[in-house]
Amino acid sequence: MALLGAIEAGGTKFVVAVADVEQPEIVLARASFKTQEPAKTIKDVQNWFDQYDDIVAIGIAAFGPIDVNHASQTYGYVLDTPKPGWSHYNFLGAMAAWLDVPYYWTTDVNGAGWGEFVSGAAKAVHNAVYLTVGTGVGAGIIVNDQLLAGMGHPEAGHIFVRQHPQDTYAGYCVFHGNQCLEGVASGPAIEQRWGISAKELPDDHLAWEIEADYLAQAVVDYTMTLRPEKVIFGGGVPHRAVLLPLIREKFAEKMAHYLPTPAVEDYIVGVEHGDNAGVIGTFYLAKSLL
Amino acid sequence: MALLGAIEAGGTKFVVAVADVEQPEIVLARASFKTQEPAKTIKDVQNWFDQYDDIVAIGIAAFGPIDVNHASQTYGYVLDTPKPGWSHYNFLGAMAAWLDVPYYWTTDVNGAGWGEFVSGAAKAVHNAVYLTVGTGVGAGIIVNDQLLAGMGHPEAGHIFVRQHPQDTYAGYCVFHGNQCLEGVASGPAIEQRWGISAKELPDDHLAWEIEADYLAQAVVDYTMTLRPEKVIFGGGVPHRAVLLPLIREKFAEKMAHYLPTPAVEDYIVGVEHGDNAGVIGTFYLAKSLL
Repeated sequence: MALLGAIEAGGTKFVVAVADVEQPEIVLARASFKTQEPAKTIKDVQNWFDQYDDIVAIGIAAFGPIDVNHASQTYGYVLDTPKPGWSHYNFLGAMAAWLDVPYYWTTDVNGAGWGEFVSGAAKAVHNAVYLTVGTGVGAGIIVNDQLLAGMGHPEAGHIFVRQHPQDTYAGYCVFHGNQCLEGVASGPAIEQRWGISAKELPDDHLAWEIEADYLAQAVVDYTMTLRPEKVIFGGGVPHRAVLLPLIREKFAEKMAHYLPTPAVEDYIVGVEHGDNAGVIGTFYLAKSLL
Repeated sequence: MALLGAIEAGGTKFVVAVADVEQPEIVLARASFKTQEPAKTIKDVQNWFDQYDDIVAIGIAAFGPIDVNHASQTYGYVLDTPKPGWSHYNFLGAMAAWLDVPYYWTTDVNGAGWGEFVSGAAKAVHNAVYLTVGTGVGAGIIVNDQLLAGMGHPEAGHIFVRQHPQDTYAGYCVFHGNQCLEGVASGPAIEQRWGISAKELPDDHLAWEIEADYLAQAVVDYTMTLRPEKVIFGGGVPHRAVLLPLIREKFAEKMAHYLPTPAVEDYIVGVEHGDNAGVIGTFYLAKSLL
């Protein structure tokens, strides 16, 4: 049986998986490894795949920023990152030296966004934004049935937001402080602002009102710029059930009926594939190379 | 000689023009009419074109919001607008009833953006943002050599911006007050904030520092979301020579080297076609139908 491989390379863990080329929806086997320094981590990945001798294509969906520009000298490299050892690491080169198959090289959010687009929450539309809110904030953007990529992949977690009047937090982003979405709305930002884990914050805490305000601003900005048919929230923070309804409410207030959008319950939604979105999307991207 | 027609439908004036199908760069004839109520204005347009009997396609680049969704019942209509008589006007229907040729129907900013993309400031790239700052603020966005259109055309002048610390102005946008870019950075916003015309404000006035701050925020947001290779400023306000260098300076500060972009002098630029960008782009869009 010809197999597809998927690598979801996250900042804290790597997930590897295989699927039948004919059934990218079904995860045949899956494992995960702690993200360590590159040589060690990549060795774990390769050792795991070595048990299969019929892999025909591999998708890699990696934490950013990464170089996805085919014309670049450093295509396939990880760019500047605070993760020890990973800056300027030739990820794709290390994989290609080990196994000569076609590789689809993209971001983790593009992998998950593509999974939701092909067969999840956005399967019926042509234009969508997948926004993940966890350790960081990132977006996979689909325009006219294609992943958006200009000079590089989107970094739409770093758009600027208006400070909430009750928020005095200085921000978590080392580049933009509290000016950008990631700086005020990522998991670490929530925890640092309130001094306790996001999980421990009760539903009626001001934290969620502030979080929803920032995320709703982002949905307004993406709506005005991209006119998507669906905005999908993934990542750890939106697991919190109180959040999505609050984002919808604030989005409607902030849009003030300026543009027609689908009913907010259909427009701003959660993931359908859960934790498998990234792996499934990455299988499909790998398959697109064949 | 087979001719292309172009209609640039603005809120204050309509521009009409014709070009040889083989040379869309050269405006053979051009006229303009004051924008009045629809029946009168469209009659002026049609009377002008009636002097030519070999028009083979017409492009219409209209003030928004307009319905550009081919699947919609109201495709070709103007949507809700404060301009008297124009809300829900079937612009395209009125034209098609007069002359049976193919019509390209898009926004004024898409027309001008396309002109700069095909043969102006963005001719060498595949991804660009054309931002016009005048009576309103609007964008034409090119992704992978195509005009971006999701559920409709972008309304990227209505993204939210962080209030400048020295700006206490309540904002001009009837939907978003001082929350959105158009509300604080359009020509009328500048004039209402300072009580004098933008033209009369001296170069060293705080007005330009504030204006550049807001426009630089917008360029950051578009950069993070769309990763364009070029951002082009058109419209009346950026004619002011002091503005573009200030926007570049503030853009660099705000990005804080988070992402690689071209050198700011090559990245954030003015139009090359001047007042003809809209007409030339609209000729090319009309020609694409043949």
